[in-house]
Amino acid sequence: MSHARAARLRERIEERRRHTPSAHAFPPDPWRIVELRPSEELVPQLESIFAVSNGYLGLRGTHEEGAPVHDPGTLVNGFHETWPIVYPEDAYGLARTGQTIVNAPDGSVVRLFVEDEPFDLRTARVLAYERALDMRTGILYRELELQTLRGQRIAVRSRRLASLQRRHLAAIHYEVEALDETVHVAISSELVTYGPRAASDDPRVGRGFTGKVLAPLEAHAQEARAALLLRAPSSGLELACGMAHLLAGHPATSVRADAEGDGARVVVLADIEPGVPLELTKFVAYHYDSDAPPGDLLARTERTLERASVDGLEAVEAAQRRHVEEFWERSDVEIDGAPALQQAVRFDLFSLLQATHRAEGLGVPAKGLTGRGYEGHYFWDTEVYVVPFLLHTDPQVARQVLEFRCGLLDAGRRRAREVGHRGALFPWRTINGEEASAYFAAGTAQCHIDADVAHALRSYRRVSGDDSLALEAGAEVLVETARFWAELGFFSDHHDGRFVINGVTGPDEYSTVVDNNAYTNLMARENLRGAVRTVEWLGAEHPDALARLVAATSLQDEEVGAWRQAAERMHIPYDEGVGVLQDEDFLVRERWDFAATPMEHYPLLLHYHPLELYRHQVIKQADVVLATYLAGSAFTEEEKRKAFDYYDPLTTGDSTLSACIQSVMASELDYPAAAYEYFLHACSVDLADEHGNTADGVHIASCGGTWIALVAGFAGLRDDDGEVALRPRLPSEWNRLRFRLRVRGRLLEVDIERERTTYTLLEGEPLTISDESRELRVAVGDPISAPREPPSSA
Amino acid sequence: MSHARAARLRERIEERRRHTPSAHAFPPDPWRIVELRPSEELVPQLESIFAVSNGYLGLRGTHEEGAPVHDPGTLVNGFHETWPIVYPEDAYGLARTGQTIVNAPDGSVVRLFVEDEPFDLRTARVLAYERALDMRTGILYRELELQTLRGQRIAVRSRRLASLQRRHLAAIHYEVEALDETVHVAISSELVTYGPRAASDDPRVGRGFTGKVLAPLEAHAQEARAALLLRAPSSGLELACGMAHLLAGHPATSVRADAEGDGARVVVLADIEPGVPLELTKFVAYHYDSDAPPGDLLARTERTLERASVDGLEAVEAAQRRHVEEFWERSDVEIDGAPALQQAVRFDLFSLLQATHRAEGLGVPAKGLTGRGYEGHYFWDTEVYVVPFLLHTDPQVARQVLEFRCGLLDAGRRRAREVGHRGALFPWRTINGEEASAYFAAGTAQCHIDADVAHALRSYRRVSGDDSLALEAGAEVLVETARFWAELGFFSDHHDGRFVINGVTGPDEYSTVVDNNAYTNLMARENLRGAVRTVEWLGAEHPDALARLVAATSLQDEEVGAWRQAAERMHIPYDEGVGVLQDEDFLVRERWDFAATPMEHYPLLLHYHPLELYRHQVIKQADVVLATYLAGSAFTEEEKRKAFDYYDPLTTGDSTLSACIQSVMASELDYPAAAYEYFLHACSVDLADEHGNTADGVHIASCGGTWIALVAGFAGLRDDDGEVALRPRLPSEWNRLRFRLRVRGRLLEVDIERERTTYTLLEGEPLTISDESRELRVAVGDPISAPREPPSSA
Repeated sequence: MSHARAARLRERIEERRRHTPSAHAFPPDPWRIVELRPSEELVPQLESIFAVSNGYLGLRGTHEEGAPVHDPGTLVNGFHETWPIVYPEDAYGLARTGQTIVNAPDGSVVRLFVEDEPFDLRTARVLAYERALDMRTGILYRELELQTLRGQRIAVRSRRLASLQRRHLAAIHYEVEALDETVHVAISSELVTYGPRAASDDPRVGRGFTGKVLAPLEAHAQEARAALLLRAPSSGLELACGMAHLLAGHPATSVRADAEGDGARVVVLADIEPGVPLELTKFVAYHYDSDAPPGDLLARTERTLERASVDGLEAVEAAQRRHVEEFWERSDVEIDGAPALQQAVRFDLFSLLQATHRAEGLGVPAKGLTGRGYEGHYFWDTEVYVVPFLLHTDPQVARQVLEFRCGLLDAGRRRAREVGHRGALFPWRTINGEEASAYFAAGTAQCHIDADVAHALRSYRRVSGDDSLALEAGAEVLVETARFWAELGFFSDHHDGRFVINGVTGPDEYSTVVDNNAYTNLMARENLRGAVRTVEWLGAEHPDALARLVAATSLQDEEVGAWRQAAERMHIPYDEGVGVLQDEDFLVRERWDFAATPMEHYPLLLHYHPLELYRHQVIKQADVVLATYLAGSAFTEEEKRKAFDYYDPLTTGDSTLSACIQSVMASELDYPAAAYEYFLHACSVDLADEHGNTADGVHIASCGGTWIALVAGFAGLRDDDGEVALRPRLPSEWNRLRFRLRVRGRLLEVDIERERTTYTLLEGEPLTISDESRELRVAVGDPISAPREPPSSA
Repeated sequence: MSHARAARLRERIEERRRHTPSAHAFPPDPWRIVELRPSEELVPQLESIFAVSNGYLGLRGTHEEGAPVHDPGTLVNGFHETWPIVYPEDAYGLARTGQTIVNAPDGSVVRLFVEDEPFDLRTARVLAYERALDMRTGILYRELELQTLRGQRIAVRSRRLASLQRRHLAAIHYEVEALDETVHVAISSELVTYGPRAASDDPRVGRGFTGKVLAPLEAHAQEARAALLLRAPSSGLELACGMAHLLAGHPATSVRADAEGDGARVVVLADIEPGVPLELTKFVAYHYDSDAPPGDLLARTERTLERASVDGLEAVEAAQRRHVEEFWERSDVEIDGAPALQQAVRFDLFSLLQATHRAEGLGVPAKGLTGRGYEGHYFWDTEVYVVPFLLHTDPQVARQVLEFRCGLLDAGRRRAREVGHRGALFPWRTINGEEASAYFAAGTAQCHIDADVAHALRSYRRVSGDDSLALEAGAEVLVETARFWAELGFFSDHHDGRFVINGVTGPDEYSTVVDNNAYTNLMARENLRGAVRTVEWLGAEHPDALARLVAATSLQDEEVGAWRQAAERMHIPYDEGVGVLQDEDFLVRERWDFAATPMEHYPLLLHYHPLELYRHQVIKQADVVLATYLAGSAFTEEEKRKAFDYYDPLTTGDSTLSACIQSVMASELDYPAAAYEYFLHACSVDLADEHGNTADGVHIASCGGTWIALVAGFAGLRDDDGEVALRPRLPSEWNRLRFRLRVRGRLLEVDIERERTTYTLLEGEPLTISDESRELRVAVGDPISAPREPPSSA
């Protein structure tokens, strides 16, 4: 049934590959992404793939020397500029304040001059070259050997990291060695503030500024150090950044630092004799904090640099390796039998680490800190696509991410008022908590984000076993979101008194402002029920917390009753033939003529007027199919199958949030070929640049989707109702799928082989799990193997 | 049934009046709008009310001396600047080129200095004052007597007109008289190019430019003449304007002209002795033409001025009076028994004259040339609200207006391609033919404009009896619009194979992008049928024309068959209780809570997020009710009544296009109180500033609506099926309603009194008409009186 669609997807991606640089040209390697020769064509993509980041700061994967280059920059999570959104045709209540992440001064630049000539990879005679992201150490390496026009051979070795241990710190080690004779070199290590990049027509890129954004406030230079203080004038945010250098190996003849305006450089001159390389360690640090006392940001930066300088690069790199090692210890998913896939999966997981590890107090941008696509905004992606991975591997980080969202509650309350309701409506896209979506039909109308947040909060409590987040902040979010739903919908006479929610947009943005989007209503129902249960729970077990909640929200008893009733009578549009309908009127639309749609017309949003898309049965990304996963218990198996069979052929997958979910449901429904095909696409979105826009940054939600496709898809994990249930479906191409799960304080290893699945409890109290509906009790030191059925051939 | 709504409307308008300057403070006068004392509060409104225009150029009703002032300017129909529309979130196929009418150099300025002090109405001691628009002469008068600080009394008399005979010409007569002693005066007659006006948040105002728009190219001055040539840089349009002066009465001591950049002035100095006024006649002329040879525009301006100077003001004014007299001769609607209403009606009719009379080759802007609201754009208003009046009073002007629309066919073809279809889609708002609506949900989605144009073309042919427009251009428009509908909709299995049109917006903009908007589908059906009949007619009677049409449109036989079928099987959403539904899902929405909506929250669009409006049963303007009028034969009387009874209470009338139509249908359905109440609002939109935005210009469509409410409402004219049928319903407050109609070469006078209606054929062959379904045959010299029923008391 679904094969036609998966095949169409493959055809499209192959078509794109024919017209773009050969992507995923990376040699298979379980732990590294390797570039074997410099390729100008791949520069844009590789700046994202080779970005190093830690959730707080990120350095794009540019060459230190600054060329060839596409969109260089250093990004600091949440450091943004605001701007008034101007609508060519305005209306009441539209989002007013645009928010865009701005490039911080780029600390990755280390320019090299050989005999006064600037070294440029595009023109240099390169004798040997390798650049590699080592995902086992968290370090990006580059080694190259070049020959000057005069014939002198030189080796240049560099490596860099964004410290997972020290979130304000990045480090670069840059080494130049003369191979034949003494060579004069100059190394200029810089902090560079870039001007605006060229505008783009692609709505997914986001808005560019027309001039330099940051205003310089202070610039300091001393010995081999320099620091800058800058300000984003409209948001008022100030950023301090600085660099410190350590020299080793071959002695330098001079070291000079200067800083002025928004730039700084430390220049090292040396006449390098063969045999002893000149080694430069560059530490860069970034601090911003709207509450910092005057002068403190520069001082903080100085302290970060001082500590790094004292500890030295070795210590910083050792800590990096340790953090990454621990990450793989808890997060790795091993695939035996598909090396290229193993590599792609590890890249996705590593990207999740880089996007989230040190984001404390901040959100997770759609592209992490690997690029400026989507303007550095936080979306629902976090809760639905990223949190599941965090929740099952590093609950503390999951908690931080959710705490950040809860912290936006007051802004959500204000936004709800603006759109005419009590309760809270979280922004569709934001950095500072205010709605930043300038197209409400595919922005503010996507109220489902409220329910997505509620879903993640409930999952967190259930999987982590930690009630404290709910007590501190989550309950209030549940109350205010439930309250919003109760106001947004109404009991409709037209639907026999059922509760209907009109005029919203579901996950699929090729339909907007529809009535009774099934995903929205199902998730809102969960949201309402969750709020009711939470209030009941507090009443029974935490009366003080309930009293605080009532005081904070003016909660009324009748309200809770109304939520219960709205949930009970929630209307889910249904058709005998199709089952659950994407929305009330989905079937009324004309089916999209896929046969008449040329491959180069994808993604459709770049080639058809929105009204044309809205008028048709055509889907950007899984919508009902996502509901069959997230709200699976609301569907019978037959309904799930009907939904997949009907919607899958209509789904373009023009969003990267789609293939992973299609794969999960194809696994559940025993469509192994489709599950596998979708998984191939999901896990290679960025390495293969499947959507042609990896240059704007790595698709972090899709990376989370890869984990979901593996663990909820092939391994069949479901723990919605509190029990850990697995239903492994190992792809026939693989020999093994192995991963670990954190569940309520336990650490469980799941090892799926062809004939058996072995469950090993590594930590914690014994746990009852279910394998193919058989209950198993696992305890530490007592692994249990469950036999596997031979794969069906559906 | 409808009284609740009409009463709510009255309450709202009264509420508004409490918070705004007392509007319609004009003393009742059947032919004049008189301002009895200078009022700073009314300045904005009166600049629109007192604007003089001729369809080509318009002078805002500013005081010659330039203060007090709100938004001064001289507007030339279609003279616009373009600008790139920038969307904060872009998408494929959105309108790209904004078009905004720009202020031409203002020729109305005649500054007065008395003893070197500038005369300013705000600070002057005014002893006597009257300003009046004389609608019987087409001239605006002002007379005032003032006293200088030194105690000298002076009389200042001015009058102005925009020539209905010479469309490039305006004339001002300015006269100063010393009443007590000799006074030194300086008169500076100017051409002033204004900078930008302040931005507005009201989406109905439209976009402002941030700097001066026009670039000066040439400036000339000589004796008492000056001329300017300017260019709108982006549209490339060039405009020449000039002024010439004649002096009379008291001799001047000096006359000096100069011109530089974008401004020019002629300064007259005089020491005026009592008894002999100084008289200055100022002629101003405007020419623009994108095809003019270089230098020609200034020469044309010079010729216009020369001719006026030779003929003299008296001749120009005499011609003005003659044109206006002829206008009233054919267009007046006399009401006996309601002087204030008579005045309001005459103002509306006069505004129609001013907006259309000399527009040849151009469209009719939503505000005529009385203000810059809606950016000088042409909308569907013209075809639906203005053409009926023109058609029945001055078919030649109706023809010009429709020819202009037909001339946009190629742009409409291009636009159809952009939104994914063959055929033609006329722009929702435009000056140059390109779509200029920057919010597609209430712009491009309002495809009904195609059917509105087709409707007007068919009405023209039927009422005028003139086939030539259809042969020359109309048939091609019908073919391309029918073709567009055939592509836009489809035969839906979901609706038993009926033809459905999804994702469009009807006239009511408080619902957007809906499925099967009844108005749209009914009008599209008419459009399709009209195209079929036209092709058949050409085949039978004009085979050569058919051959040309086929060549121009690549028309296929099967296409015509498909149109017939689409029309036959057109789906009109229907509900047993409500009858015809505004759209498929109208009843699914929650009813707007009018009781909870404070009066100051109207118009709702300025106080509620669009999604809130879209989610509710709440109507900006007549939609189904408009269909019951325009496509009346598609409804039974019972269906019309149901529609009115259901939709009327949901209609806010936030658009001025609503009350007139509600009045028509209330008349037809014998709701006399509601018909009258709505009419009161419809006819006073601008004189009473009922929507609070007359300052931006007079609502020309609503003026047309006043005529419709009188002639189609109270007199009950219907001539959709070729027969002139009347069904008079004289409001009980009135003694008489009398007007004339042009029908197929005849001139018919309809004189409705309490007891009888008298039909008098003034010109042409005998005509069969129907009065209350009785057939009457009228011939010249043989008036027929039909008795009237006593008014019902529904």
